[in-house]
Amino acid sequence: MFKKILIANRGEIALRVIRTCREMGIRTVAVYSTADKDSLHVKFADEAVCIGKPQSSDSYLNIPRIIAAAEITNADAIHPGYGFLAENANFAEICQQNGIKFIGPTPEQIRKMGDKMTAKETMIAAGVPVIPGSKALLESLEQTIEMANDMGYPIILKATAGGGGKGMRVVWAEEEIEKAYNTAKAEALASFKNDGIYMEKFVEEPRHIEIQVAGDQYGTVCHMSERDCSIQRRHQKLVEESPSPFITPDLRKQMGEAAKKAAAAINYEGVGTIEFLVDKHRNFYFMEMNTRIQVEHCVTEEVINFDLIKEQIKIAAGIAISGQDYEPVGHAIECRINAEDPYNDFRPSPGKITILHQPGGHGVRVDSHAYSGYTITPYYDSMIGKLITIARTREEAIDTMYRALSEYVVEGVKTTIPFHLQLMKDEKFINGDFNTKFLETFDLQEPAKK
Amino acid sequence: MFKKILIANRGEIALRVIRTCREMGIRTVAVYSTADKDSLHVKFADEAVCIGKPQSSDSYLNIPRIIAAAEITNADAIHPGYGFLAENANFAEICQQNGIKFIGPTPEQIRKMGDKMTAKETMIAAGVPVIPGSKALLESLEQTIEMANDMGYPIILKATAGGGGKGMRVVWAEEEIEKAYNTAKAEALASFKNDGIYMEKFVEEPRHIEIQVAGDQYGTVCHMSERDCSIQRRHQKLVEESPSPFITPDLRKQMGEAAKKAAAAINYEGVGTIEFLVDKHRNFYFMEMNTRIQVEHCVTEEVINFDLIKEQIKIAAGIAISGQDYEPVGHAIECRINAEDPYNDFRPSPGKITILHQPGGHGVRVDSHAYSGYTITPYYDSMIGKLITIARTREEAIDTMYRALSEYVVEGVKTTIPFHLQLMKDEKFINGDFNTKFLETFDLQEPAKK
Repeated sequence: MFKKILIANRGEIALRVIRTCREMGIRTVAVYSTADKDSLHVKFADEAVCIGKPQSSDSYLNIPRIIAAAEITNADAIHPGYGFLAENANFAEICQQNGIKFIGPTPEQIRKMGDKMTAKETMIAAGVPVIPGSKALLESLEQTIEMANDMGYPIILKATAGGGGKGMRVVWAEEEIEKAYNTAKAEALASFKNDGIYMEKFVEEPRHIEIQVAGDQYGTVCHMSERDCSIQRRHQKLVEESPSPFITPDLRKQMGEAAKKAAAAINYEGVGTIEFLVDKHRNFYFMEMNTRIQVEHCVTEEVINFDLIKEQIKIAAGIAISGQDYEPVGHAIECRINAEDPYNDFRPSPGKITILHQPGGHGVRVDSHAYSGYTITPYYDSMIGKLITIARTREEAIDTMYRALSEYVVEGVKTTIPFHLQLMKDEKFINGDFNTKFLETFDLQEPAKK
Repeated sequence: MFKKILIANRGEIALRVIRTCREMGIRTVAVYSTADKDSLHVKFADEAVCIGKPQSSDSYLNIPRIIAAAEITNADAIHPGYGFLAENANFAEICQQNGIKFIGPTPEQIRKMGDKMTAKETMIAAGVPVIPGSKALLESLEQTIEMANDMGYPIILKATAGGGGKGMRVVWAEEEIEKAYNTAKAEALASFKNDGIYMEKFVEEPRHIEIQVAGDQYGTVCHMSERDCSIQRRHQKLVEESPSPFITPDLRKQMGEAAKKAAAAINYEGVGTIEFLVDKHRNFYFMEMNTRIQVEHCVTEEVINFDLIKEQIKIAAGIAISGQDYEPVGHAIECRINAEDPYNDFRPSPGKITILHQPGGHGVRVDSHAYSGYTITPYYDSMIGKLITIARTREEAIDTMYRALSEYVVEGVKTTIPFHLQLMKDEKFINGDFNTKFLETFDLQEPAKK
């Protein structure tokens, strides 16, 4: 087992990794920018090395300084957390070249999943469903009709130079296709001076459901069931849960098997996530693989009762996994508590947290690097912490979440807490009736003036 | 279901009850003494009523004021927490007379278990093992020998007027009994001017292991496995865990059945605890029943995944239980974080907590009413909070406990944290090799001077 791990990250995930290392008896090295000198990850690590100025390029993205910090402190492994260098194949390679174990997949595995086209081709070859689409630009109306009939309606036409919905048309039946084809091409030409269009299967009422997987150095893979991350705002997840209220045991089995195929196809080493879009008919399609730990890993930890950071470290140290899959027991929900103003388009609200009191009690987990007097800087993400609740049922997990959210005291910055409080009382959310478009029409109520 | 519950208590347990009520959608009334006006239980309740001066007799033990507070606020039930009035049959009766549901057993049930002699007789009649002993004073050496042979060695002779070990002798074999009998009597006479002695079976290497039970209003009872509370100092529990490292599945079954017999014998209504002494041969003997929720209920909650306060409230509201027994899944440990000086005979260390930072993360639960700026008063117990860790195995729960303890920041008062830190690294504790005498020889190390 490793003797000393350097954590090439900051904030709650750096603290999260330090906690597990301490439980495993492994010494830790924090790295920090000058903006983070008062952070808990610096205080709680056994050693800490300042690596530069606040800008990420000067510190948390600065590979030579991080490698130097590892060499100075004699760390034998580096945990990259999420974000920053976590999916940087070059960094993983440089670690390797310097004889430092990168806790995560190999550079080759990162590359294979990092390039979207390569990843999609790998998945098709492995038999994992991807969103069907035309491989090249559409050549004629006749070809488009033929292809749509093969694919099945609805389909979506998209401008190859597109964006902002221009040159985009959803087609529900063959009788609509001629008009849609012509207007899409005309709109594309007018908007982008390029009338090239392509076709994809249209995913109705898409849910973002991802499967947690793990693979060891000996080719064994397993899955640890799903997380539903459909509550997103502009592709930023705000609430995650496991199990998904939408999933059936049969769909879990199918998606779990597909996720294992995906991981096995690249001999994946480490813990990772296969992200799928699931339509309202419960068809699922591979979106991408995250070759790292995710922010929302905690909900999986609570329903399968494993420490995923410990699993990462064990796998990196060459320990084999059993290959057993894990089903969720109970229900866990995570709300991201960010220093953002939900009444002002979730604009970041950096500043000093003058008072912080976090909830506790039965069924409550808080992962946070913040404290009374801590400053959320404008340099990095605005996370204050993650609030996770765990209960026997989804209904109880929501009740506990509402209770815990209402106990939070955060003064000095605006937070996403009012948003979460309203969401936990939202009938559609409570009924599990939501998809990735849910927040587009969510009507956040201003609090009553006191 | 109740609409509004008054919590006739303070501190962490008042907050604990408020949390569950909030999750159940039940309104809450806090009562508080003038010393507790800044307490979180006051802040987090929907309503709060000041009931008097700091002295418990003026406030938390003042029945007329508490009943008046319930009537003024129109509460339909009272939760007594633990301590104070929780096992006061008169209080339960007065609640009943005032049409307020006492969340706990009936006055008759409290009385039956409150009087130790009655409780013991009830248990003998129900077939629950109690510590065998002479029913009256010993009359002669011959009678003593005969009785000891029946009971089996070792036995203990005790002075009826005794205390402090005077007139007390453990006898391991018949050849020792004459001398022991004579010296015990002589010592008793010299010490207490009363040479009456009696005999009990001597419990070797006793462990305090208790079984959590629940019974509903329709005569159904169940057990929820055990807690090991052997780590005690002068009968004050400091650390509790579930499951007990000493118990076997067979012993759990036997003790669970005995505990259910005990509860059924008085048609017990509510959640309660049957406390047993278990000797090194795994014989177990009824000590007493606690007819209330206990401080250490949290470890049971974590290994059986139930909210016991919710169960209490549901049972009091007339909801039936299934009768299913529950086995522990995983392992939970609780450390009591008290404002006491472990280097000074655990002397209370009241005062203002100037800085408080509590641990978090995977496997950590904190139940605490304290915050930065909160004052531990000298009027009540000195609890700052309860730290509970949960893991797949006992070894991991200990590792997580050590990690979590080491994250605590408490400034302004002395705490039991250094004691717990040392205990979590103690080889005997780690091996589960301890009994109620463990702390008598525990050598607390002063921290190295910095």
